[in-house]
Amino acid sequence: MATLTSAPRRADDIRRHNLGLVLAHVHRDGALTRAALTQRLGMSRSTIGVLVSDLAALGLVSAQVPTGGERTGRPSHVVGPSDSGPYAVAVDVDVTHVCIAAVGIGGRVLVRKTVALRLHATPRAVVNAVARTLPLLAERVPAGAWPIGIGVSIPGTVVQGGTVGFAPNLGWRHVPLRAMLEDALGNGLPISLGNDADLSVLAEHRHGAGRGYEDVVYMLGRVGVGAGLVVGGKQMRGHDGRAGEIGHTVMNPNGRPCQCGKRGCVETYIGDGALLRGVRGASTVADVLAAAAAGDPDAVTTVRDVAHWLGRVLAGVVNVLAPERVIMGGSFAGVLDFSRADVIDALAADAIEGATEQVVVTGPELGDDSALVGAAETVFAPLLEDPLSLLRSASV
Amino acid sequence: MATLTSAPRRADDIRRHNLGLVLAHVHRDGALTRAALTQRLGMSRSTIGVLVSDLAALGLVSAQVPTGGERTGRPSHVVGPSDSGPYAVAVDVDVTHVCIAAVGIGGRVLVRKTVALRLHATPRAVVNAVARTLPLLAERVPAGAWPIGIGVSIPGTVVQGGTVGFAPNLGWRHVPLRAMLEDALGNGLPISLGNDADLSVLAEHRHGAGRGYEDVVYMLGRVGVGAGLVVGGKQMRGHDGRAGEIGHTVMNPNGRPCQCGKRGCVETYIGDGALLRGVRGASTVADVLAAAAAGDPDAVTTVRDVAHWLGRVLAGVVNVLAPERVIMGGSFAGVLDFSRADVIDALAADAIEGATEQVVVTGPELGDDSALVGAAETVFAPLLEDPLSLLRSASV
Repeated sequence: MATLTSAPRRADDIRRHNLGLVLAHVHRDGALTRAALTQRLGMSRSTIGVLVSDLAALGLVSAQVPTGGERTGRPSHVVGPSDSGPYAVAVDVDVTHVCIAAVGIGGRVLVRKTVALRLHATPRAVVNAVARTLPLLAERVPAGAWPIGIGVSIPGTVVQGGTVGFAPNLGWRHVPLRAMLEDALGNGLPISLGNDADLSVLAEHRHGAGRGYEDVVYMLGRVGVGAGLVVGGKQMRGHDGRAGEIGHTVMNPNGRPCQCGKRGCVETYIGDGALLRGVRGASTVADVLAAAAAGDPDAVTTVRDVAHWLGRVLAGVVNVLAPERVIMGGSFAGVLDFSRADVIDALAADAIEGATEQVVVTGPELGDDSALVGAAETVFAPLLEDPLSLLRSASV
Repeated sequence: MATLTSAPRRADDIRRHNLGLVLAHVHRDGALTRAALTQRLGMSRSTIGVLVSDLAALGLVSAQVPTGGERTGRPSHVVGPSDSGPYAVAVDVDVTHVCIAAVGIGGRVLVRKTVALRLHATPRAVVNAVARTLPLLAERVPAGAWPIGIGVSIPGTVVQGGTVGFAPNLGWRHVPLRAMLEDALGNGLPISLGNDADLSVLAEHRHGAGRGYEDVVYMLGRVGVGAGLVVGGKQMRGHDGRAGEIGHTVMNPNGRPCQCGKRGCVETYIGDGALLRGVRGASTVADVLAAAAAGDPDAVTTVRDVAHWLGRVLAGVVNVLAPERVIMGGSFAGVLDFSRADVIDALAADAIEGATEQVVVTGPELGDDSALVGAAETVFAPLLEDPLSLLRSASV
């Protein structure tokens, strides 16, 4: 009896595991030939064939024979993320706007809509924006696609996956955002919250500039400033999920007032405010960077100044963590592009001797979408663990 | 045939694994009753009995029936680290002295000898001190005890386990210290090098104030300053082993000259030099702390000032790592004792809101021996993995 009941369970476990493996490869690397999958996973052609068929039946992948092609012989099927499968609703809450998107397997943004927010938007305003936008998104996704969960990126600390602890630039403290969204949406979709920098490093580590590296720091420059950390190949969020909150380390107690209530925080030196402050008439960071590129002296000085302080802040982070890869995201991507030497010189000047030889500083591969794609990752995580879990939630 | 050859190997593996488990418990927690081991490991009384006998035969543990005792019935044997078993030679190289010790299983310092060093001691001087002292140590250890390896703590970065990368306060760069020691000692004992703060956090995590915590920072204040990190229960040394080099983050580019060649490094604010500088006639940190305790105004001001900067530096570390436990070692232990409020106030002022509620700041349980005990841990590591490895090195 024991054998009879445990044998099917074990076979079923193996099947789930193998389905997850194939899906994870397609999710991470995009379209792959069946031959490539066979080689990577060390399984037989026929096993891969069955697994791909199963995943296709679940709507997770599509398998196509490439047309054209110059080689003779039977061409290998190309297995890619499905366009009409399950998608994640990804919500990137920033201080000035909220971006709501449908993100498919593979981390592709299928559809997006951005809603502007007033200064110090309330949690209710953000919840309403999401609720209004979801139906528009559903109309525009590819036919047959359906949502399986909602991931939300927050410019602040997140407690126990459901509550915003402190989001200084929104002025939010202890906001039970998950419960508010559940109430307002009423669609039963699972909702997870994450910190914007944490989600960004997750996305870049899986799909972008951090792929294949064990020790990665993602520095996110927006109105607020934070860092997302991957240590030893794993996301690191600290004891209470607050790791990487570098924006609110005080550099000068007599410095400029910060939204967090203190003075002279890192954010006042390198956040978007520092870029906008230096250039009269600029209303966006893009304006400032364009003016600098055009040679406007104030803009050049401002961007270079921020670049210098960015390098100094990075020195402190590099001395603590000794990462191999630093990804500059948000406005820092543009600052690095314009003024790389200032960043690297300040890093070299303020970090321990030799530190710059060990670390590569680069821009993000996902552009401004890192946080969105990271939010989607949290939605896809259970699916990658067990693709058959989709059957249990198929009633949605 | 496959079964015949693989079955014994598997049984042998299980034995090695179980021997390692029992030894690890005794090593970490000291003397335990056989009954406690039986319960902890979920093995039978007789299995534990056999494993303990094996470990005793290897000289690793001693099992004794407690004398006296008020309870009736058969008392459980007490299994403790053996006094006459293998020991690690632990060498703690500091800037002013080198301490050489025999450390037994369980992290107990059996014998020690400290040799003073001149300012900017050469690698050769340190090697000679170790070579001269080893025979004295061997004479004074308990009868029957024998050395199985040498662990060396270095106030600087260590590259690939054998070379000192940069030790600013010794003025060492790229010193192949392991090879030098091997040549000078000629006894064939394996030698490993580690950074002092890294080894300290290892020791406190295993045997001291960090036991049972997943995210621990050990701040080491000596002539130099560094941090040792445990993240998610594992030691974290960064991509190139340079993690935790917080002493050489520049706080003020126009500040005091630092031994590393820069100006205004963290070390110039909170290293031993900052304590000694403020009190005329003080030649040791102990003098400064004693003078402060006696109410000497200069000493009080100096210690409080260092405490304030220590809290500020800690804020940066806490914002990056969000640890649950911070251990203040070396001179920082005394600074924290004298002036805890200054440390905590500065931490609260400079870290993100709420950070101080999540972290406990405490002194070390191993006092000044953390680095020594950590160096011994690196020697014991293979033994804990496989106690039978001792048989292979028994010829030493």
